[in-house]
Amino acid sequence: MRPTARQVAELANVSVATVSYVLSGRDRPVAAETRQRVLDAARQLGYTPNQAARSLRKRRTQRVCLVLSSLGGVPTDERLATDLHEMADARGYSVITLAVYSEARANAAIDVLRGGIADGALINVVGGHLTQDLLSGLATTGLPMVVLSNEIGLDGCDVVRTPETEACMEAVEHLLAEGRRRIAFLAHRHELYRDPPVGRLLGYLKALDRYGVDQRIITSGADDRVAAYRTATELLRAPDRPDAIFAASDRAAISAIWAARDAGLSVPGDVAIVGVGNIEEGLITNPPLSTVGPLRDDHVDVVRLLFDRLQAKEALPAREIVRTWTLLRRGSS
Amino acid sequence: MRPTARQVAELANVSVATVSYVLSGRDRPVAAETRQRVLDAARQLGYTPNQAARSLRKRRTQRVCLVLSSLGGVPTDERLATDLHEMADARGYSVITLAVYSEARANAAIDVLRGGIADGALINVVGGHLTQDLLSGLATTGLPMVVLSNEIGLDGCDVVRTPETEACMEAVEHLLAEGRRRIAFLAHRHELYRDPPVGRLLGYLKALDRYGVDQRIITSGADDRVAAYRTATELLRAPDRPDAIFAASDRAAISAIWAARDAGLSVPGDVAIVGVGNIEEGLITNPPLSTVGPLRDDHVDVVRLLFDRLQAKEALPAREIVRTWTLLRRGSS
Repeated sequence: MRPTARQVAELANVSVATVSYVLSGRDRPVAAETRQRVLDAARQLGYTPNQAARSLRKRRTQRVCLVLSSLGGVPTDERLATDLHEMADARGYSVITLAVYSEARANAAIDVLRGGIADGALINVVGGHLTQDLLSGLATTGLPMVVLSNEIGLDGCDVVRTPETEACMEAVEHLLAEGRRRIAFLAHRHELYRDPPVGRLLGYLKALDRYGVDQRIITSGADDRVAAYRTATELLRAPDRPDAIFAASDRAAISAIWAARDAGLSVPGDVAIVGVGNIEEGLITNPPLSTVGPLRDDHVDVVRLLFDRLQAKEALPAREIVRTWTLLRRGSS
Repeated sequence: MRPTARQVAELANVSVATVSYVLSGRDRPVAAETRQRVLDAARQLGYTPNQAARSLRKRRTQRVCLVLSSLGGVPTDERLATDLHEMADARGYSVITLAVYSEARANAAIDVLRGGIADGALINVVGGHLTQDLLSGLATTGLPMVVLSNEIGLDGCDVVRTPETEACMEAVEHLLAEGRRRIAFLAHRHELYRDPPVGRLLGYLKALDRYGVDQRIITSGADDRVAAYRTATELLRAPDRPDAIFAASDRAAISAIWAARDAGLSVPGDVAIVGVGNIEEGLITNPPLSTVGPLRDDHVDVVRLLFDRLQAKEALPAREIVRTWTLLRRGSS
């Protein structure tokens, strides 16, 4: 039998009204400790608010929320925002955006979403701030959610996986197969401090392992065009310069091409350069940028998952989408 | 004597409660037509909700709203977002962001703000969608607002002016003084269709007028690095190529430097290039980019205006800040 709100209330030792306030996400003052007790009880019993309540909630704001980890400058986030806004326009929804780049911001974002600011959320999880626990707690409120993450598993939500590690491994193996042995990696900061390594950095490490190459040259730079240019310049002007640079973002790889040209090196003759993301700008560099990323430059399929949920009459089963990434070999490698 | 809510209610032919719902921005269903009548009446009488109501309102959400015109990729917006988030973090506020890039989005943003989603708003007005009327209407609700705009005047709000026209005029006059006569302008789309011309385009036109130079070469491209590269390439490979490119954004100017180098032209020998904005990336181009923009790369002064308003015990007088822009001549001109 389905657990009831009364059972949750009893387990949490609160009133049914309090359970309702907490789980419907309405803006009522409930002490943090009480709220946590209700959420824990709901999770323990597998309780989710019933369909009628969810339907009511659905029509409440006509807003969807986009949760990003950046404050701009990240092409994936920009494309996601563009596609979400376009579909929201077509369906009469407003879009509000929240940026999560710290633990405090993560907690604040969850609070805002629990407060019922939007009817659903599209969440791009980058870095470790939006934890499994925070997102699971949010999911128990019944908020329709689509989450882009390779690490988080969520009941009742759609998750979108990106084969970053595998694709980056393929990119580095391509450099190794071409005979490159001193391959530098320009990493995103959020991957540099993970232990064990994850994502794009893990792909780099795995490829080197597979080829038995010991030399690891790992530095930050993928978050920022200027930092990438300076880092690449330093690497390329050193006496033991790398024969390849693999950057965790196309933006950084483009800076590396400029650093190489400004250092009087030929690309790919002296140094091969490969990026990640397949942004359009990779087509106007000289030589054009090799990259791993999605073939299609949009997230319409991901955005549609959210509106499917918002407009469904009944709760939809949780779906998992795995995006397709490809190595696009162009002139720079 | 101060007008009262009762007078507004009488003029609008509604109850005082309805006036209160509409002007406090609370989430109650009020027909659009009724709401408009209340807003018109309030405007006509010069009514603003009283201070006690505003104080109550102030503590309501602990959220501030950032209204931008872009979905990413605009350095000014990114800096504004960074500075707002930092100050909000320090003062315990959440930040939600709304993007306004169409008339529909402008109306939706105003509705969301009227609905009380945040305690105050920082609004960067770019393009014509957020009109004087829409923003004045919002201002009558008493919402603390700081508005970046050169064209809009608002009672009771802080406005921030940027001397874009004057600065761009100075940049183009600098090119003219160096003997350049075929100066191409890469414009933002939102300025291309304004009649009479405004902003950066107006500065370009005024400088040419002052020097009695007839040749105008105006094209889009400032919004997009790839478009700028392609446009600059086309211009620079034509038989009657320009001897200078003035781009309305540094991003576009940087693309133009690449286009010139890829076309085998020397910068500034064959073609001088100047941008707008003074982004850090202008320091790593080769040659470094001449630009007009703020000397300081932050908006802390602007963001502080909003928090001053949010934390003031009494309504603050409206302030007007004029930012300082300077021509920074570097290697590219």
